[in-house]
Amino acid sequence: MAELTKKEIVKRLHDLGVDLKKNVDDLKDPHITIPLRTLANAYFDKKDRMIKLGERTQTRTFFNVGQSKKFMQTALVASQIKQLLEQDKPAISTRQLYYILKHSIEGTKENTFDDQATESDPVIEDVEVTINALREQLGLEATPSGVISGPLKYEDLKTDDIIDCSKMGSAGAAIPPNTEPHVVKFKECKADFILVVEKFAVWNLLNQSKFWKKHNCILMTGKGQAARSDRRLVSRLAKEYKIPVYVFADNDAYGYYIYSVYKQGSINLAFFSEKAACPDAKFIGLKTGDIKKFDIAKSNWIKLEGHDLKRLKEISKYEWFQSKEWQAELQAMKDFGYKVESDALVSKSIEFMADTYLPRVIKEKNWLD
Amino acid sequence: MAELTKKEIVKRLHDLGVDLKKNVDDLKDPHITIPLRTLANAYFDKKDRMIKLGERTQTRTFFNVGQSKKFMQTALVASQIKQLLEQDKPAISTRQLYYILKHSIEGTKENTFDDQATESDPVIEDVEVTINALREQLGLEATPSGVISGPLKYEDLKTDDIIDCSKMGSAGAAIPPNTEPHVVKFKECKADFILVVEKFAVWNLLNQSKFWKKHNCILMTGKGQAARSDRRLVSRLAKEYKIPVYVFADNDAYGYYIYSVYKQGSINLAFFSEKAACPDAKFIGLKTGDIKKFDIAKSNWIKLEGHDLKRLKEISKYEWFQSKEWQAELQAMKDFGYKVESDALVSKSIEFMADTYLPRVIKEKNWLD
Repeated sequence: MAELTKKEIVKRLHDLGVDLKKNVDDLKDPHITIPLRTLANAYFDKKDRMIKLGERTQTRTFFNVGQSKKFMQTALVASQIKQLLEQDKPAISTRQLYYILKHSIEGTKENTFDDQATESDPVIEDVEVTINALREQLGLEATPSGVISGPLKYEDLKTDDIIDCSKMGSAGAAIPPNTEPHVVKFKECKADFILVVEKFAVWNLLNQSKFWKKHNCILMTGKGQAARSDRRLVSRLAKEYKIPVYVFADNDAYGYYIYSVYKQGSINLAFFSEKAACPDAKFIGLKTGDIKKFDIAKSNWIKLEGHDLKRLKEISKYEWFQSKEWQAELQAMKDFGYKVESDALVSKSIEFMADTYLPRVIKEKNWLD
Repeated sequence: MAELTKKEIVKRLHDLGVDLKKNVDDLKDPHITIPLRTLANAYFDKKDRMIKLGERTQTRTFFNVGQSKKFMQTALVASQIKQLLEQDKPAISTRQLYYILKHSIEGTKENTFDDQATESDPVIEDVEVTINALREQLGLEATPSGVISGPLKYEDLKTDDIIDCSKMGSAGAAIPPNTEPHVVKFKECKADFILVVEKFAVWNLLNQSKFWKKHNCILMTGKGQAARSDRRLVSRLAKEYKIPVYVFADNDAYGYYIYSVYKQGSINLAFFSEKAACPDAKFIGLKTGDIKKFDIAKSNWIKLEGHDLKRLKEISKYEWFQSKEWQAELQAMKDFGYKVESDALVSKSIEFMADTYLPRVIKEKNWLD
């Protein structure tokens, strides 16, 4: 899918319209068949170890009072996207697309759209899955959040700049809003692995310690829950260069979940998850047993509160946390009753994280999979 | 202040300790004199047009049951910062400093610190104002959020990389967590002005349209409310290159406030605001009168809700919004009853913002000051 050209995407959108017109010409009820994006149609594929969208579809028809507005909205979105692509317009945000499409329908008091979150965004996702292309390929870009440093060079095909992520200073390279192959063309990646760090402050410490240089890796952070383009970048690098991904997140239910989103995606964005997953990613943050193993002072443990326990219970039920090792870890955390942030490792020494903890965990393969 | 060297900062921290030791040697109550960071001691300086910290101070003494713990914490923070600076350690976050300092006091059940937000962070700010240096100069860095593009080159003194913000692709250059002169050394800036954009999606559109190239400007976004290093970077560029700053934010109370923070800072961070203000910045977003002037379709107006009106009322009382022009604008918005996001300009055409709106507003000086 990554190699879909713009021409092919325009063709798919065009065909969608041709089919609709044929319905009209044949005096049939115009309809679009759309893969179902409901939770019930998302599943964890045990073989490929990622969340996927199932095979079920819905049919959206025009002559159906309950569906006709949404039908009109779907046709509007598909047609507008096609037009923007054909005219080589800059990529826009889903909010901007909403503003472009929102207008009152002539002769009525009705608007095409009244709300972005409940109306235009879901329809954009419908169009994505229907033509099997990510929104970034359709010229829709989200706000990125991450930064990256390390031995990676890519060409930005929108500007023809060569970005050398080993020369980006203390800021690192900003991850662009679109990391699809039609924008980010990898030129060279000499890294042995990718270290994905949950928090910027931890990334900053490792970047200043030249961790990526010493260990010949790519050092990336999504600053918490990663944005779409951050995830796609990591996924593409892992796949195209066949290098392992290590996720350094907090020792708590939230850190574990962030790891799992990089690894196998999320149910809400099942369609995207297939394209952005890193099924071989390992969790190399602190595990409950490591707190005593690495002698983290008790003053730096944080007592689990109600919301921690609730989240812990939730993730312990997710299918992708069912391995014996993960179940044991989740139970151990609950029994122990404390969590520890990655940041707390600085209490050992500023260098401990970069010089002791991470090299040792990676060498000993003391990770969770 | 920007030119304070590390040696001078260490000296100031050292002197703080020497003074305390002298108190002890003289059998006096050890005490530190700290500028007051209360709201009552922050004020809007009408002449310099920025928020400043007043002259009032407090004395924190050791032999005072209500102050002794905070006294101890202040000494701990100052001493730890001095040590990290002397040892040339990488910069850390305020959370990491909290973890380094937090420990149980020998022979007691008491911790040095129990909470970051209410204990270590305020003490860090006390140390900043006491020695009159920003935390970034003390080796404490916050998470940055912004990106920048345009004819600006700087040297990153932490890594010796030269960052050319005109060659950073569709991502733009990530703004580093520390933009003080000891990290960011400007090499060249050929821009005629700085365009600060509230939202990433708007920045992205302008960046793709090569706005900065066509109009020879620096194009920056802080992605909403700007981070410290983003604000310092804009402020330094404006001061050192004597170029105007235009803020393109939303036509609503929140956008107006974001503009005002870039311009004159905020009361909460009055000490920082003096160093990060851009008192000549102009607001070039949509004003209420522009909605009809530029014929923005009514379907793209958003009705003001309770929280909008509340915020509008609040900012209309701020001293730095007291000009006749701003008061008229705030009243006009209230009377009109609608707000319009910058994003809505795309409904005119994708190019409207870059090719019509911004050039026209700047040419006609149709801004608010």
